[in-house]
Amino acid sequence: MRYNSRKRLKAGVHMQIINEPDQALAQAVQGIQWTYPELAWVPDTYGCYDRHFADNQIPLLAGGGSGHAPAHWGYVGHGMLTGAVMGTIFTPPTAEQIVKVAQAMTHQRRLFLIVKNFPADVKAFKTAQTTLQDQGWDVGMALVADDISVDNASLKQRRRGVAGTVLIHKLLGAAAANGATMAELTTLAQHVTAATKTIGVATSGALIPGQADASFTLNPGEIYYGIGIHGEPGYRQEPFQSSERLAQELISKLRLNFQWHAHDHYAVLVNSLGGITPLELMVFNHDVHELLQLDQLALDFHQAGTFLTSNGMHGLSLTLLHLEQTDWLAALNMPVKTPAWPNH
Amino acid sequence: MRYNSRKRLKAGVHMQIINEPDQALAQAVQGIQWTYPELAWVPDTYGCYDRHFADNQIPLLAGGGSGHAPAHWGYVGHGMLTGAVMGTIFTPPTAEQIVKVAQAMTHQRRLFLIVKNFPADVKAFKTAQTTLQDQGWDVGMALVADDISVDNASLKQRRRGVAGTVLIHKLLGAAAANGATMAELTTLAQHVTAATKTIGVATSGALIPGQADASFTLNPGEIYYGIGIHGEPGYRQEPFQSSERLAQELISKLRLNFQWHAHDHYAVLVNSLGGITPLELMVFNHDVHELLQLDQLALDFHQAGTFLTSNGMHGLSLTLLHLEQTDWLAALNMPVKTPAWPNH
Repeated sequence: MRYNSRKRLKAGVHMQIINEPDQALAQAVQGIQWTYPELAWVPDTYGCYDRHFADNQIPLLAGGGSGHAPAHWGYVGHGMLTGAVMGTIFTPPTAEQIVKVAQAMTHQRRLFLIVKNFPADVKAFKTAQTTLQDQGWDVGMALVADDISVDNASLKQRRRGVAGTVLIHKLLGAAAANGATMAELTTLAQHVTAATKTIGVATSGALIPGQADASFTLNPGEIYYGIGIHGEPGYRQEPFQSSERLAQELISKLRLNFQWHAHDHYAVLVNSLGGITPLELMVFNHDVHELLQLDQLALDFHQAGTFLTSNGMHGLSLTLLHLEQTDWLAALNMPVKTPAWPNH
Repeated sequence: MRYNSRKRLKAGVHMQIINEPDQALAQAVQGIQWTYPELAWVPDTYGCYDRHFADNQIPLLAGGGSGHAPAHWGYVGHGMLTGAVMGTIFTPPTAEQIVKVAQAMTHQRRLFLIVKNFPADVKAFKTAQTTLQDQGWDVGMALVADDISVDNASLKQRRRGVAGTVLIHKLLGAAAANGATMAELTTLAQHVTAATKTIGVATSGALIPGQADASFTLNPGEIYYGIGIHGEPGYRQEPFQSSERLAQELISKLRLNFQWHAHDHYAVLVNSLGGITPLELMVFNHDVHELLQLDQLALDFHQAGTFLTSNGMHGLSLTLLHLEQTDWLAALNMPVKTPAWPNH
């Protein structure tokens, strides 16, 4: 049966340009392979590694569900990730797949994992860590928990790993390429993950291949604060007023969390969740700049683009990273050659 | 009045994350300025140029309407464009704005213009050319007309300038940086524009800030062949079947136009029109690769990404460039440093 029988589609829901939904991921990986031959893909996984990796530094492996492109495969290359291992859409890879990619990408029996703080991701990567340790590997781990949105029921911060993860890739990638030891990577990871905070919003849910409905539906004209990158609901929905009002809300939440002072040094990542236009992203980027300048922060590093998406979600996230140590800025600025990290 | 009063929005139409619609473009430019300080913007225009331009080659200036980001400002940098001048959304700059940007970016009184073949664009750029020539400038021009879609009424090819324009930027940019004369650029432009053909499809129209409706609306599950990058209607709408069927249709149209033979050398550009996911783009990219391989073409250069958009349109385009001369491949591969051209 063809995918796109009309009965599955409702007005306003965009069909997806794919073939059979259960083939989408495998075919997309073949498309990625053609465009980025520098990535070597590991059989029986959706995982890949840098074909040119010299295997003379601690290899870094990140991963999680698919549907976040260009994360994580887009950040594989010298100075950033050695490899990336994805599962199916919004589902982490299995421990076995993680182990396979680790074994394929290095002969060193040492490895540093970068994991987003979702229970299923943490479980799979910790199981893989134990498996490799049982085989004599030295395996470090960074747990990224940058999401400061609050759960309505528990009133606790969700602490999920979201777009700030890409900055962690960059910082740890630079350190590893510069010869950091396992102990140095572990300490750095603790500091940079604690210094990174993100909050996201959306006006539509995420898409799953083969499903006509997005992960959540809002009333027309509403925006949802604190959504998750797998299309999880947020903490508040309200009528959208303006990009500036949105920037005010997100920055006030970040300000409360960081308790910053004038002249503190920050990196800023304005991230499209995939479905918004460059025009919207740059209007919001403008508003963020105006508002952070009012607080007299030193904005030493900033990027705006599509870094970590939620498969077609109309939305964006704002990440701030407190640059506590001066060499972090050099690490962020270090040129790399990957499919997706911008060199300009 | 706030932009986002609910009455303007209908179910299924996504609001846009902006402030007052008539401020969107100016604020987006300020956002771009913050992220890409290497671009110098020219007062009273939406035009910019490479701040580091050494003014020792023929400067290249491209432009057209806004709403196509990252085109055209994203291709400004050494080895590609010297400057880019945009008008408002889907409206070309005025001749006066084009002249202003030309005068701001060079002291040489010579210039090469790259123009997409739309009547309003051609008129504005030709008027600017005449104005500058009257002031003693030597001004060449490339007219890009890569769109092979056919108008239903006249049965004539539309010959609009669409995504292939980005390849023309790259080829002429490399030649200019390597010291090409005006005569050489003019001859090269004639050859490369004749060798570049594109066709696009969409499942939704383009968005205009402040307007709730997209530029056209299809029945659920339908796809439109031959749409334009300003949201112009296509030549046929039909139920979407699969990405592969879509690739077959587009490639058969390109095959008819090129009349290619096995082992001919081609460059391929798979372009997102803005609203589709990386997953969809890469599935289609896979299908294009499979089908072109069946024809035994030599696919020496290929890219898949978001190169020239139609403000939020769910769709994509396929461009082929017949590599008639071997130095064209070197020009496509020459590294550049711009906001948007991928170096990997």
